Amino acid sequence: MRSRKTVIDETDLSILRFVQDNCHAPLDNVAKRLDIPKSTLHYRIKRLEKDGVIEGYHAKVNPVDLGYDYVAIILVRAKYGPRYHERVGKKIVAIPGVWAVYYVLGEYDFIVLLRATNRDDYMHKLELLSNITDIERTNTQIAAKIIKEDPRLQL
Amino acid sequence: MRSRKTVIDETDLSILRFVQDNCHAPLDNVAKRLDIPKSTLHYRIKRLEKDGVIEGYHAKVNPVDLGYDYVAIILVRAKYGPRYHERVGKKIVAIPGVWAVYYVLGEYDFIVLLRATNRDDYMHKLELLSNITDIERTNTQIAAKIIKEDPRLQL
Amino acid sequence: MRSRKTVIDETDLSILRFVQDNCHAPLDNVAKRLDIPKSTLHYRIKRLEKDGVIEGYHAKVNPVDLGYDYVAIILVRAKYGPRYHERVGKKIVAIPGVWAVYYVLGEYDFIVLLRATNRDDYMHKLELLSNITDIERTNTQIAAKIIKEDPRLQL
Amino acid sequence: MRSRKTVIDETDLSILRFVQDNCHAPLDNVAKRLDIPKSTLHYRIKRLEKDGVIEGYHAKVNPVDLGYDYVAIILVRAKYGPRYHERVGKKIVAIPGVWAVYYVLGEYDFIVLLRATNRDDYMHKLELLSNITDIERTNTQIAAKIIKEDPRLQL
Amino acid sequence: MRSRKTVIDETDLSILRFVQDNCHAPLDNVAKRLDIPKSTLHYRIKRLEKDGVIEGYHAKVNPVDLGYDYVAIILVRAKYGPRYHERVGKKIVAIPGVWAVYYVLGEYDFIVLLRATNRDDYMHKLELLSNITDIERTNTQIAAKIIKEDPRLQL
Amino acid sequence: MRSRKTVIDETDLSILRFVQDNCHAPLDNVAKRLDIPKSTLHYRIKRLEKDGVIEGYHAKVNPVDLGYDYVAIILVRAKYGPRYHERVGKKIVAIPGVWAVYYVLGEYDFIVLLRATNRDDYMHKLELLSNITDIERTNTQIAAKIIKEDPRLQL
Amino acid sequence: MRSRKTVIDETDLSILRFVQDNCHAPLDNVAKRLDIPKSTLHYRIKRLEKDGVIEGYHAKVNPVDLGYDYVAIILVRAKYGPRYHERVGKKIVAIPGVWAVYYVLGEYDFIVLLRATNRDDYMHKLELLSNITDIERTNTQIAAKIIKEDPRLQL
Amino acid sequence: MRSRKTVIDETDLSILRFVQDNCHAPLDNVAKRLDIPKSTLHYRIKRLEKDGVIEGYHAKVNPVDLGYDYVAIILVRAKYGPRYHERVGKKIVAIPGVWAVYYVLGEYDFIVLLRATNRDDYMHKLELLSNITDIERTNTQIAAKIIKEDPRLQL
Repeated sequence: MRSRKTVIDETDLSILRFVQDNCHAPLDNVAKRLDIPKSTLHYRIKRLEKDGVIEGYHAKVNPVDLGYDYVAIILVRAKYGPRYHERVGKKIVAIPGVWAVYYVLGEYDFIVLLRATNRDDYMHKLELLSNITDIERTNTQIAAKIIKEDPRLQL
Repeated sequence: MRSRKTVIDETDLSILRFVQDNCHAPLDNVAKRLDIPKSTLHYRIKRLEKDGVIEGYHAKVNPVDLGYDYVAIILVRAKYGPRYHERVGKKIVAIPGVWAVYYVLGEYDFIVLLRATNRDDYMHKLELLSNITDIERTNTQIAAKIIKEDPRLQL
Repeated sequence: MRSRKTVIDETDLSILRFVQDNCHAPLDNVAKRLDIPKSTLHYRIKRLEKDGVIEGYHAKVNPVDLGYDYVAIILVRAKYGPRYHERVGKKIVAIPGVWAVYYVLGEYDFIVLLRATNRDDYMHKLELLSNITDIERTNTQIAAKIIKEDPRLQL
Repeated sequence: MRSRKTVIDETDLSILRFVQDNCHAPLDNVAKRLDIPKSTLHYRIKRLEKDGVIEGYHAKVNPVDLGYDYVAIILVRAKYGPRYHERVGKKIVAIPGVWAVYYVLGEYDFIVLLRATNRDDYMHKLELLSNITDIERTNTQIAAKIIKEDPRLQL
Repeated sequence: MRSRKTVIDETDLSILRFVQDNCHAPLDNVAKRLDIPKSTLHYRIKRLEKDGVIEGYHAKVNPVDLGYDYVAIILVRAKYGPRYHERVGKKIVAIPGVWAVYYVLGEYDFIVLLRATNRDDYMHKLELLSNITDIERTNTQIAAKIIKEDPRLQL
Repeated sequence: MRSRKTVIDETDLSILRFVQDNCHAPLDNVAKRLDIPKSTLHYRIKRLEKDGVIEGYHAKVNPVDLGYDYVAIILVRAKYGPRYHERVGKKIVAIPGVWAVYYVLGEYDFIVLLRATNRDDYMHKLELLSNITDIERTNTQIAAKIIKEDPRLQL
Repeated sequence: MRSRKTVIDETDLSILRFVQDNCHAPLDNVAKRLDIPKSTLHYRIKRLEKDGVIEGYHAKVNPVDLGYDYVAIILVRAKYGPRYHERVGKKIVAIPGVWAVYYVLGEYDFIVLLRATNRDDYMHKLELLSNITDIERTNTQIAAKIIKEDPRLQL
Repeated sequence: MRSRKTVIDETDLSILRFVQDNCHAPLDNVAKRLDIPKSTLHYRIKRLEKDGVIEGYHAKVNPVDLGYDYVAIILVRAKYGPRYHERVGKKIVAIPGVWAVYYVLGEYDFIVLLRATNRDDYMHKLELLSNITDIERTNTQIAAKIIKEDPRLQL
């Protein structure tokens, strides 16, 4: 994880809070809501973008409407070897549907979050995962219910 | 999970693909890139918004710049009881820093993704989690490395 | 398990082998195939029915055509108590979709085979299971694929 | 699992319910009980057979009378490899006494249901299972009591 | 375990070795075999008995001939409480068929060796065990084969 | 386990009960106690010995007096292979101090009971055990207290 | 853990390195070895003491000579409750022989390092540990060999 | 562990108790406090040093001030082989930050205590550990809180 370079003050925080929630509001409205001059707002946003604090602007698409009914969290054990977490991690990331891969400390080596459209799709993806050299064991927990899934920061 | 109501065709997919990646590009550019009339683009986007396929537009904020150095995946076991997954799930969601909660089938009952700024912050949050009535056991896997974390769909 | 009372010879075996595979064939054909007089066949079958060796005649219905897409094997731990395996076993059996319940020796107390039509149906049934007093923990293994499922004896 | 092709209505359901329970009753009786014309009954049954909804007609033989006293549920872990679940699954199925094999998602890879006549017979079969290349570990749960075992659908 | 009080020399060892293997041989033969005077032999044996080094003389009865076909090793977890290992240990010992009970350090609290005549007998005994207040969980390993079972010391 | 050949009646049982407890009592006393003629007693005992029901007569030596302070129960997992339980079982038996080896069904493959004089002696024996080809893992439970250890049958 | 207040430079490091290894050498020798004026050395040491970087000066006593033959690492699970890690942690610390207690993230709640003189002493201490309200389970790993045990920092 | 050679009496104990707590007090003060002649004190201390009862005199340095924020307890499983615990133990000890390594009996083979300055430092050390040939699996428990860490004996 890169070290923190940017100093962020309260005004920045209020801007980030807003645009994280809605980045389509016209700048005028935002400036009014946050009670800062529009030029300041514009300047600060550009700076936050330049420093990488704001990484991008994305439409949030509902997975269910795109047919992604299958959500799984897979606990993975791999075989130890030189720089294994990089080699194996790279291959896991290459599997379609895999949207998060964490290299963890604990009983397991990786925790993987995966989306699939249906069981066959999931089985195919799990097969790709199992085929990765040096993956010893996978333990799948199927999500019966998504109680919450919102990666936005709580600012 | 709500049932799928909207029918989505190839043109919709190309639009979603684009705006999921960048929702700040001017409509003119998008229309040109996707080779569809601007009015069609505008109409389809409004429909996708109305149907809930597009749920919102968000700036992606880098967690590290906001001090969130601590990422944990917590495997939770709860005590069984009537509608326990709803009662307990609701309380887990209320904990600051918790951004995903899945009710799963398998050895565990819930899988929780959590962000914290430092160890004290994490300990405080873990304490809140452990204090929830009916949580029996938590098994924390600290993420030593985030190999990937991108919830955008692969369209 | 009741003790074995009936003595079964080779002829009985050949009859059972046949009717286990197909109990709709006319008796004439069966007698010819097995090379035994029709009256003997008739007599022996009646005796096997009377002794409970043949418990019934059933049409085998394809679960998939009836919408049963969800197959799960649930490993169950219960809280110990007087005659707990009977009390708890009885309640598990009462859950719709449960078609096999074994009280086992080993890490677990019961192994349960369950059919459901879809995830919601499964969740509802799992909820009924979890609500049984004295069930401590359930560990679900979803069947990704039924490689074989044929309870007929290999005679 | 093949996709569902046949549309099944209430009348079909009532027929299936009946013949699943007893497929030796004369058609006249069935027609009377279900209050449908005999010809309709005959037609529908033929159609259900042709579509594979009814897969066959079998006599149910009591395992205990055939000496099958030993019932085991074996949890199996296999070594990962290309299409391993097919290769290994095929070999497990070939073992006498194995009547169900499920490829599962979870801690284990396969769950196997096995019948044997006595301990020596079981040991021999377990040996065959352990000898399968790529089976790493088996964890046997002996059924001390069969509380229920009835694969018929609950229509 | 009481502290060792008796000093045992080589001659004692040779005597113990002999009588552990066969305590029905006439003293004359033993004395000759071990090349020690009969009076010395007699004296030493009396001393070993008096000091409790020799605890008794027992005929070894073959369990199989007495119908004990069922051998189980049960790993037990108990609920903690004041002097729990004594209270619980005492109750385990009271169960018929239990011939060894060890209070252990490790994942489990007690390891119990049990003999039973058949499955019903075992189930009854396991029921008594499960009914002991404060026993939380039992994990049974059925002995498929006794490769060795000889408590005599290797002197 | 060899099949049971000998028929044992109540009188035999009373004799076995007695000699299992004390095989040094003069035959006269035993005959009087059991209220059977001395000749009958003598005959029956010879028959029980000939049939292998009585396998021998042994002095019971106190392990503590011989310096055996260390008692361990070792749960063993072995690598699967053809007739592995025989090959591995044989090697385990060859280790000094090992007095019981059970091939079990369950999470483990073998359960081994071992005596040692002190920690170094135990470590040496454990090393021999770990060195056996195809032993994958051993899980030792040290007996903190022997609550009971008496292999005599409860007749 | 208190935040770091003191700035430590290379000279401080060389001093700490020396006195951590041997704090009985006369200051003259130390000053000569480290090639710094004695007055500077004296000043810096006083400052390091005042800031708490040097917490004390201790003779290292060999545990074996004091009869401490028994070393155990105990993995502890406790029952969750408000501020449970403080309440339970405090009670664990009060047990004689306990010299380290870590509140950990993972499968266990606490890891405890314990010294005892012999098995009875250990059992007594383990009993005190088990008796602590809210301790659910302890899993003891006896150290068969101390390969290394030196808490001095590697400066 | 070397056998105990030195006989230690009450006076020795009182001396060890004192110098273990503070070895910088002038001998005069110690002698006065313990009410023994200074010459006796000097003689006894020299003897305790010569016999290795006192192994050294060390300044206790606060790890936090040296930047060691990361404390981990790692449970290690290794692959069995001839004298594996020595070979593997030696390599673990060579890793910087490792200050204790215990070869244990139980589920695990080694328990390792490790200090690191930050996550990257820890990851690097964990990598070195994982790279050791024959280490199969490591299970890390991060210390969220050091409740106690004081290796001094309780005399």
